[in-house]
Amino acid sequence: MERFQFQFVSQDATSRARRGTITTPHGVVQTPTFMPVGTRGSVKGVEVGLLEKTGSRIVLGNTYHLMLRPGAEIVRELGGLHEFTGWNAPMLTDSGGFQLFSLARLTKITEEGAVFRSHIDGRKIELTPEGSIAIQEALGADIIMAFDHVVELPNSRSVVADAMRRTVRWAARCQKARARDDQALFGIVQGGLEYDLRKECAERLAEMDFQGYAIGGLSVGEEPREMYDCIEAVEPFMPREKPRYLMGVGRPIDIIEGIRRGVDMFDCVMPSRNGRNAMAFTDAGPMRLRNARYERDPRPLEENCPCPACQRSRAYVRHLFATGEMLGPILLTIHNITYYQRLVAEARRAIDENRYAEFYQNKVEGWARGLAD
Amino acid sequence: MERFQFQFVSQDATSRARRGTITTPHGVVQTPTFMPVGTRGSVKGVEVGLLEKTGSRIVLGNTYHLMLRPGAEIVRELGGLHEFTGWNAPMLTDSGGFQLFSLARLTKITEEGAVFRSHIDGRKIELTPEGSIAIQEALGADIIMAFDHVVELPNSRSVVADAMRRTVRWAARCQKARARDDQALFGIVQGGLEYDLRKECAERLAEMDFQGYAIGGLSVGEEPREMYDCIEAVEPFMPREKPRYLMGVGRPIDIIEGIRRGVDMFDCVMPSRNGRNAMAFTDAGPMRLRNARYERDPRPLEENCPCPACQRSRAYVRHLFATGEMLGPILLTIHNITYYQRLVAEARRAIDENRYAEFYQNKVEGWARGLAD
Repeated sequence: MERFQFQFVSQDATSRARRGTITTPHGVVQTPTFMPVGTRGSVKGVEVGLLEKTGSRIVLGNTYHLMLRPGAEIVRELGGLHEFTGWNAPMLTDSGGFQLFSLARLTKITEEGAVFRSHIDGRKIELTPEGSIAIQEALGADIIMAFDHVVELPNSRSVVADAMRRTVRWAARCQKARARDDQALFGIVQGGLEYDLRKECAERLAEMDFQGYAIGGLSVGEEPREMYDCIEAVEPFMPREKPRYLMGVGRPIDIIEGIRRGVDMFDCVMPSRNGRNAMAFTDAGPMRLRNARYERDPRPLEENCPCPACQRSRAYVRHLFATGEMLGPILLTIHNITYYQRLVAEARRAIDENRYAEFYQNKVEGWARGLAD
Repeated sequence: MERFQFQFVSQDATSRARRGTITTPHGVVQTPTFMPVGTRGSVKGVEVGLLEKTGSRIVLGNTYHLMLRPGAEIVRELGGLHEFTGWNAPMLTDSGGFQLFSLARLTKITEEGAVFRSHIDGRKIELTPEGSIAIQEALGADIIMAFDHVVELPNSRSVVADAMRRTVRWAARCQKARARDDQALFGIVQGGLEYDLRKECAERLAEMDFQGYAIGGLSVGEEPREMYDCIEAVEPFMPREKPRYLMGVGRPIDIIEGIRRGVDMFDCVMPSRNGRNAMAFTDAGPMRLRNARYERDPRPLEENCPCPACQRSRAYVRHLFATGEMLGPILLTIHNITYYQRLVAEARRAIDENRYAEFYQNKVEGWARGLAD
């Protein structure tokens, strides 16, 4: 694995926030970074040329969805996920663990792996650590994830501990199962909200020397405060010289709370999903574009946003949603992803200039102030 | 009207096809040209930057739809249709006549105008020649259309003659009602399939000196052959030094049949509508991308097509439709509009080189041959 590299660039003087660069076979990513989600080989509604212009540098694909349709073998035959989708920049695939937990009708978890029924046709499928790696190697992303056992929260300590230890054993099997040397493999720290279990997991995975480490199993129903505290508790035990990825998180506030606690990578469907539902993220908080108040509003969603939606008026975007035009969801998805990318870009600049705490404060105050009118 | 100009460039030696340029306040259009349809201020699913890359130079907006939502006054307040939609190139609006015929629940046509019920909320609305012009002036397209009376075909000669003569009287009222001098007004030739009525209409409108002339009321159920014959019958009576626009037409074959008979401008929802329904136009005829035969097909929809869809594989486009991803309709809409623009661009080159008949023959043979596999 010489083609993957994480370079720790600097530590903010006012927080745990840090700057880094990730080098992959398909290009370099500045961290902290946000990865839009291209579940089934497409960030919904966004052509890759426009996606690139949002400032996105790395995109996530879902192993679970892609193994069902079109199938990993077809993607491999067609040259892998980069060639298939036309996204010729870094990509990451998750392991399927989270979707088995959230989406599939999971029928059974054993030490061997998971048996589940497809949410599409009910077909029975087995997914093991070895199978997840084989699929992710066929998909061919730059970064792949170990297959983990996710449990819902709250849950009993013994269930959480059991899933965490299985996750560690599965991580070892994932490492052993690898055949390609041009992808980075990240381990996933589990352990619910039990700090000592998180610590144990982080330490055991650290000993196994993965190329990066994720915090998994959060943002599954716990309070934001509990999530932040948990990140804070586990961070000291995650190797400083490796990238840290907080999976499936989150709202803009969660992103900057995560960065503040030393997280380098994030992914979330929120900018695209909320965009499709007529919600735009702005520095003054969320804007709901179905609202009649925007009927004649000539202003862009947000001043200084370079995205194509902000070359139009709020009235135009509102009109698109009012008439059910596809372009409404498209434009707001692009705006929201651009918003997230501008947010992490600003965070990177703030860290470079040792003023992350101030940046954080300004953002929080802006969101709290809300829209002026 | 000094800002609008049609320049007749050349006549093909092998057909009635002709080359021209239309100059408008928002730019120059080479003819023959195809106008994609942006019904409600958006070509469905296509961001304007991508629309420009299809080779489109002029876009059509629908007066009927825009007067209902968001309303012409709102568009005017927001700077007109160019500013509202972000399309800063030439635009044309139709007069609403055809949509009253095809879409609205038309309740009454009198000499004064039409009374109809909105297809959205059933609200009763009156549209007169003067009203249509006022709305089109508020929308602010570069080319606006006279308000015409469209009847379905087949129909009795007396109904067709009555509607044609009303269309002529309404055209005179439209001319008189104009307040802006920076838009071109086109008259619309009606007369069904009765060649003498078409001739009478064309001659009477020609005397009134419009900036351009349209052939309306075709592609409403008659056979293609009847349409072609009708164009051929009316063409000699349409001023040679003015642009000629065949409204709402059509399939690729209809476009090249029209050009061959001296038509300069076309518009149709077919490339976008069929694209949304998984049909791609190609030089070997239509390709249906839901078909399982494309599941592993690594080829682009069409070789040499520069559109973003053709930077992917057929397998990828098929996957997008199979999984219901928005990007499928988006990519095929872009491909199809690009296909139409490449078709008219090739037609223009063929006319420039006096080989339109050969170009026509090659296209027809290609479509007839069909897909090789």
